[in-house]
Amino acid sequence: MKRILYDLAAADEALRFSPYCWRIKLALAHKNLSYETVPWRFTEKDVIAFSGQGKVPVLVDGETTISGSQEVADYLERQYPNEASLFGEPPARALTMFIRAWTEDMLHPAIARIILPDIYAQLHPKDKAYFRASREKAWGMAIEDFHAGREGHVKALQAVLAPVRRTLAGQSFIAGDAPSYADHIVFGALQWGRLMSAAPLFAADDLLLAWMDAVLAVYGI
Amino acid sequence: MKRILYDLAAADEALRFSPYCWRIKLALAHKNLSYETVPWRFTEKDVIAFSGQGKVPVLVDGETTISGSQEVADYLERQYPNEASLFGEPPARALTMFIRAWTEDMLHPAIARIILPDIYAQLHPKDKAYFRASREKAWGMAIEDFHAGREGHVKALQAVLAPVRRTLAGQSFIAGDAPSYADHIVFGALQWGRLMSAAPLFAADDLLLAWMDAVLAVYGI
Repeated sequence: MKRILYDLAAADEALRFSPYCWRIKLALAHKNLSYETVPWRFTEKDVIAFSGQGKVPVLVDGETTISGSQEVADYLERQYPNEASLFGEPPARALTMFIRAWTEDMLHPAIARIILPDIYAQLHPKDKAYFRASREKAWGMAIEDFHAGREGHVKALQAVLAPVRRTLAGQSFIAGDAPSYADHIVFGALQWGRLMSAAPLFAADDLLLAWMDAVLAVYGI
Repeated sequence: MKRILYDLAAADEALRFSPYCWRIKLALAHKNLSYETVPWRFTEKDVIAFSGQGKVPVLVDGETTISGSQEVADYLERQYPNEASLFGEPPARALTMFIRAWTEDMLHPAIARIILPDIYAQLHPKDKAYFRASREKAWGMAIEDFHAGREGHVKALQAVLAPVRRTLAGQSFIAGDAPSYADHIVFGALQWGRLMSAAPLFAADDLLLAWMDAVLAVYGI
């Protein structure tokens, strides 16, 4: 059976930067499920119109199409109960929902504030007008205005990350001895920052980079 | 067997405001364990000197003395395995450690910034000099200077709480269908704010207050 993940790409089609798609690539690896990716750009709405909506991740698993990272994760957990659990026994999924909310409400904006112009610079030309219009509307400022005060925003990001650092000072993964979907969620955000930032967000010896490498190593990525 | 919790009190000995002691009161209720509290003030170091340190919570459980909220919670979980688990199966305890780090690094400071002078006003006279000196040193500003910009700090607290609100919009408790120690930790912080703030921090119909009442109702408190 073929399993296909539509995965957001930059102008360089090997540069896959969506934090939500990274969650699912790690979740598929966690479940030991093979898959192929299709590079997808923001404006290729027609390519995923069959999914009934216009965003990735979209997973086609044989006859089944699922979109939305949480929906895909819940589908994988339900559909492949004999593989390692993505969440663990209750109440782990519920607690993971807090970590998801924190990641999307606090961590994503802190990273976006820094890397938005860096993303813009690396997009496929056909995506640039869409990205500029949607992000400038959401943030109420021009892409070019994001450059000002970068240093301060990198500092603000470190403050937001304090609870992650403190957690990982006491245990190997956010989920303890091995990564779970909570790790996938936070990893996705930091991978997005790491891949797209024009200047490094973290020192080479940062605990967070060691944790990211450890997550990838667990899955042989 | 007698079980005694040393519990931080204000001038009014019925006003028990420590977020860390609240965690343990809920944890004891969760474990269905009866206990008595001893009201304790910051400067009564001699009263808990037997615990080998100078802070509450201190729990005396028969012959055993434990101090530090996490140490007490872990002790209760270990000592009373036949009662309802405080954390749930792995990886729930590890995920709870993230929620703890977030609460202490982000939520506590946001609440303290608002209520510090309100706490000071309600302390037992013998605690005031200690509290002033320690808090003014930690924050680098005078207690009286905390009053300025209160409205802005209440707004900042609402921003910090966004992930809690979003989580509780999708499920009854942070741990899902029933509260666990993750709920106790966040409850402790908000109870501290609710009890000590001179002006309400939340609207009467706030989702967070409904959740706090639901936590108390589960334990019949």
